[in-house]
Amino acid sequence: MNSFGRIFRVNIFGESHGEGVGVLIDGVPAGLPLKTDDFLPDLERRKGGQQKGTTPRKEDDFPFFKSGLFNDKATGAPITILFENNNTRSGDYAKQRAVPRPGHADFVASKKFGGNEDYRGGGHFSGRLTVGLVAAGVVAKKILGDIKVEATITEVGGEKDVEKGLQKAIEAKDSVGGIVECRVSGLPIGLGEPFFDSVESLLGHAVFAIPAVRGVEFGTGFAAAKMFGVEHNDAIENAEGKTVTNHAGGVVGGITNGNELVFRIAIKPTSSTPKDQFTLNWETNEMETFSVKGRHDLCIALRVPPVLEAVTAIVLADLMLLEQQVKRII
Amino acid sequence: MNSFGRIFRVNIFGESHGEGVGVLIDGVPAGLPLKTDDFLPDLERRKGGQQKGTTPRKEDDFPFFKSGLFNDKATGAPITILFENNNTRSGDYAKQRAVPRPGHADFVASKKFGGNEDYRGGGHFSGRLTVGLVAAGVVAKKILGDIKVEATITEVGGEKDVEKGLQKAIEAKDSVGGIVECRVSGLPIGLGEPFFDSVESLLGHAVFAIPAVRGVEFGTGFAAAKMFGVEHNDAIENAEGKTVTNHAGGVVGGITNGNELVFRIAIKPTSSTPKDQFTLNWETNEMETFSVKGRHDLCIALRVPPVLEAVTAIVLADLMLLEQQVKRII
Amino acid sequence: MNSFGRIFRVNIFGESHGEGVGVLIDGVPAGLPLKTDDFLPDLERRKGGQQKGTTPRKEDDFPFFKSGLFNDKATGAPITILFENNNTRSGDYAKQRAVPRPGHADFVASKKFGGNEDYRGGGHFSGRLTVGLVAAGVVAKKILGDIKVEATITEVGGEKDVEKGLQKAIEAKDSVGGIVECRVSGLPIGLGEPFFDSVESLLGHAVFAIPAVRGVEFGTGFAAAKMFGVEHNDAIENAEGKTVTNHAGGVVGGITNGNELVFRIAIKPTSSTPKDQFTLNWETNEMETFSVKGRHDLCIALRVPPVLEAVTAIVLADLMLLEQQVKRII
Amino acid sequence: MNSFGRIFRVNIFGESHGEGVGVLIDGVPAGLPLKTDDFLPDLERRKGGQQKGTTPRKEDDFPFFKSGLFNDKATGAPITILFENNNTRSGDYAKQRAVPRPGHADFVASKKFGGNEDYRGGGHFSGRLTVGLVAAGVVAKKILGDIKVEATITEVGGEKDVEKGLQKAIEAKDSVGGIVECRVSGLPIGLGEPFFDSVESLLGHAVFAIPAVRGVEFGTGFAAAKMFGVEHNDAIENAEGKTVTNHAGGVVGGITNGNELVFRIAIKPTSSTPKDQFTLNWETNEMETFSVKGRHDLCIALRVPPVLEAVTAIVLADLMLLEQQVKRII
Repeated sequence: MNSFGRIFRVNIFGESHGEGVGVLIDGVPAGLPLKTDDFLPDLERRKGGQQKGTTPRKEDDFPFFKSGLFNDKATGAPITILFENNNTRSGDYAKQRAVPRPGHADFVASKKFGGNEDYRGGGHFSGRLTVGLVAAGVVAKKILGDIKVEATITEVGGEKDVEKGLQKAIEAKDSVGGIVECRVSGLPIGLGEPFFDSVESLLGHAVFAIPAVRGVEFGTGFAAAKMFGVEHNDAIENAEGKTVTNHAGGVVGGITNGNELVFRIAIKPTSSTPKDQFTLNWETNEMETFSVKGRHDLCIALRVPPVLEAVTAIVLADLMLLEQQVKRII
Repeated sequence: MNSFGRIFRVNIFGESHGEGVGVLIDGVPAGLPLKTDDFLPDLERRKGGQQKGTTPRKEDDFPFFKSGLFNDKATGAPITILFENNNTRSGDYAKQRAVPRPGHADFVASKKFGGNEDYRGGGHFSGRLTVGLVAAGVVAKKILGDIKVEATITEVGGEKDVEKGLQKAIEAKDSVGGIVECRVSGLPIGLGEPFFDSVESLLGHAVFAIPAVRGVEFGTGFAAAKMFGVEHNDAIENAEGKTVTNHAGGVVGGITNGNELVFRIAIKPTSSTPKDQFTLNWETNEMETFSVKGRHDLCIALRVPPVLEAVTAIVLADLMLLEQQVKRII
Repeated sequence: MNSFGRIFRVNIFGESHGEGVGVLIDGVPAGLPLKTDDFLPDLERRKGGQQKGTTPRKEDDFPFFKSGLFNDKATGAPITILFENNNTRSGDYAKQRAVPRPGHADFVASKKFGGNEDYRGGGHFSGRLTVGLVAAGVVAKKILGDIKVEATITEVGGEKDVEKGLQKAIEAKDSVGGIVECRVSGLPIGLGEPFFDSVESLLGHAVFAIPAVRGVEFGTGFAAAKMFGVEHNDAIENAEGKTVTNHAGGVVGGITNGNELVFRIAIKPTSSTPKDQFTLNWETNEMETFSVKGRHDLCIALRVPPVLEAVTAIVLADLMLLEQQVKRII
Repeated sequence: MNSFGRIFRVNIFGESHGEGVGVLIDGVPAGLPLKTDDFLPDLERRKGGQQKGTTPRKEDDFPFFKSGLFNDKATGAPITILFENNNTRSGDYAKQRAVPRPGHADFVASKKFGGNEDYRGGGHFSGRLTVGLVAAGVVAKKILGDIKVEATITEVGGEKDVEKGLQKAIEAKDSVGGIVECRVSGLPIGLGEPFFDSVESLLGHAVFAIPAVRGVEFGTGFAAAKMFGVEHNDAIENAEGKTVTNHAGGVVGGITNGNELVFRIAIKPTSSTPKDQFTLNWETNEMETFSVKGRHDLCIALRVPPVLEAVTAIVLADLMLLEQQVKRII
């Protein structure tokens, strides 16, 4: 399904090399102040072409508002934002139609959609779609108010020193993966809805919508599996729920406990690598050597932080709107 | 929300020390053969008290069918299954009301539900609720037919030799965590729904509904973040999508690619440990020493495999039902 | 789908002659006071066998609470209520398996569910299922607080004098239909969610879940189609939205306007009539004379008021919970 | 919520006098042939200004496809269609801001959205939004294939002779209401999902999203309330479910029975009438005389048939997609 959320509901549409990409957001509280300038910083952060290791494709990524805003405020009706595709070079991809790229959705998309998918540049599976997520994230962050969502790259190509990791990739003439960590401060106690909509469940759902994500862990995460109970448990210090340690990463029983929310995602190396690879040729039905000629990121993880912040804010804004309702009626 | 799924829809209810726990399953195809005996093996696997490191609490876990079955087949109407709570000792917990147990939902539940939650034995947050998941999983596995879902413990307390890990816990008189891996063979190509309902998104959502899960990773997972692109990419070998390696764990672009689905979850050490701990006393508003007296698992990970299989089957059955519909209409 | 609602979510299960029927309600605000006695009056009103024209089948209709209540309050977890079927005489129906009763779901259910449906007494299609609706309605009414929901029979067999209409049926030895009107006072302005979840849309959805409903109209309803604009428009009198007339029935643009909500539903004559009828015999594949021997209501409309109140309260409680959240965040 | 449907999912956006209006459709089967020309006939039918009694506002109503189509086929990704607003005269409305028009959403929208709504021309509440419905209906009709959906005006201003009804309105210099009937032939037996998603429930839900609808009735409808059971019951004639009469209008127990689906909706007289009316002035807080100067339809019912066909097709396409899945798995 191309939508996500219960109250704050995000719908993603578009293709990499079609007319454009965009987002339709339902459930935005009327009166929320929103203007074009609010969107530009995160959209700018998501863009490639500005740092070592990212693709030179530079879309303007200007948000065209088609509905839901009036006098620089949300009206309560759905907000539709369109981003035009201006800078596409479909020729790069068309000739590769017969050769499904390893690590990309080319093969599965063709099987799933019977060959009817827009295959150019990955079509609906392209990372370009995340521009709509980032726009929705800007709206979500506004709803969150003083709650601060911040994602940073903590590792590239196995190196904590990110520059060093990138240098490794450049030297190897290959792409590399990385780790992105997200921290959220200022959250109230009590967000998350048992049994299925725990904070981890919803964030887990959302982060795997970001292309190239291969894992997610909360707090101490996979390392917790190697710990003793007495080590891992966070002793509760005071009535506000502050804990002495934060191995839980701010979520216990699926519910925020008032401490900092901390989680990490693993990003695989960009599937499009400058290296020669083997893959099937659908026409000959034999494997052949293949090499990517398009513009691509050496390390897609570099572009993930604003996208991770966006999906995190989307999940939390929805939970905030839901939680208000739980408290209020009695 | 206490429900999950689009077509095959699972609703979980109940409390650890209330009348019982159970599951209501909507969307089961009429005619699916189902009888009590089908449920017993997985329910038995989930039970504690039978192996070193699990709690001696032994509920009968007998499934009482309240609706949806007729002549040993699904009728197409919702299936309701009730499990009675016979073997509860609430006294163990009532006296601890003032002392929210570290690592448990006691504190957050009280804040979220304003003190109205059934706090006995963790109430609705208890691992006992997973018996309903396992029952739904049995139905889901029937829908999956020849698709085989299998979860195994691959690590306990940091040891690949699980016995050794348990021994460590017993010696330390403390609880330990573990890793559980799930493998699914026989899946068709094409399951998963862009943009938000990728296979990883839905499984990520579902696995974090299992208490104590702290992370999930697909295929090579977190290790992928340290790899080069040419290493990680799985070369496609033939028109059925078989790949030479399976770093992707059977999912590319969020869609099953016909290879074995492989993922792992990290389980934290059981929060209830025999060791002394510190926590807040709500009445005195001061921290105090605290020790768990109830019956608990030293390694909750040991009981997770049938539960992980269940949520996996639930997700895949739903995607199978959805996918059929995509293919058929044109 | 056997569930309905976004925040206050009702799931109906059971069969007429199976183990029982019931309801699972998710999204009930924690702390809402609820005890068995709250449920008995509406359950009693729904029961047959107490007035001229209703079936002599008398189930106890005692609500067994299986989850979600603790110390006579909602816990915030799902509330499951079970009603046992004690007073069934399946023999009445089994012999009619070959003869799908006209006006009943026997034929369509068999086609839809491939003959696997529980056909005894209409199975999942039986009016008995409405006992769960009534129970959910009691919870919804509690959420509504001072908002008063009241349904009354306004017409039976074409007669405004209901007694006279019933007498007509008794004399004709046939069943008759009727009209039930629902009025809700004390509603705030602003309930209803464009574009698809107008108050009329949600109520329209809900009322057609009640068996035997054939139409619904709001305010002046079908008569509005014969009016001029200047006649039909309700002039707004004051800043609280009071209108001089109430042709709109309290809903404008799909949103409550603060005036009394008024709507009516048309109930067809009970399909089971004592009269001889023609229908197909599936075994002979020929039409044959057929006569109903079971216990049935001469006028099912008589039992509809508490059910109509229930679905109305369910819709409005859900909208109240949703609306609170819209107002609050800015 | 501005979305509707489970598999075939329609999202409506836009405002009467903003950038434009449109629709995002998720769940369209890949490969469905779709081109601009397919949309023009129904869009043309919906347009005003071409017959006596409809508004002279003529938007081009040209569908701009922003996503989801490739090589004149659905790709399986969401289809986004935008309609530009070119022919707006907001001046007409801006000056009326202080005077909420009787029968319009002006008053309730302002209360609900705290004055932040786009009030120009009714904003998101405008009938202009139905252009998106009609576009989604075209896609739905394609999915339905040979199933034929046809809506016709059967009454205007109380007259079966529609011309006569319109003449009455013109002479009275007032707006009038009407009745629109929809008939669907070629439906399979078995569409509709108990307990809450009966065919009537879903159509009831959908039709009340059309502005100005005040009632809906199936088959004999409200007249059924005056009938005896033996009169109303439709005798089943053969194994294909053909009935001798069709009082049920093709739906029994909420499920299609293979006969023609027949239902009617009541449309109120256009709220904007040339006649003088009374209403509140928010600034003076007193009632004042008021007269509509904008361009409006004398009988909005005239424009409803293609919209009614559209929502009907939307509901049925969704049920078709769902039903396929029910049948197939065993």
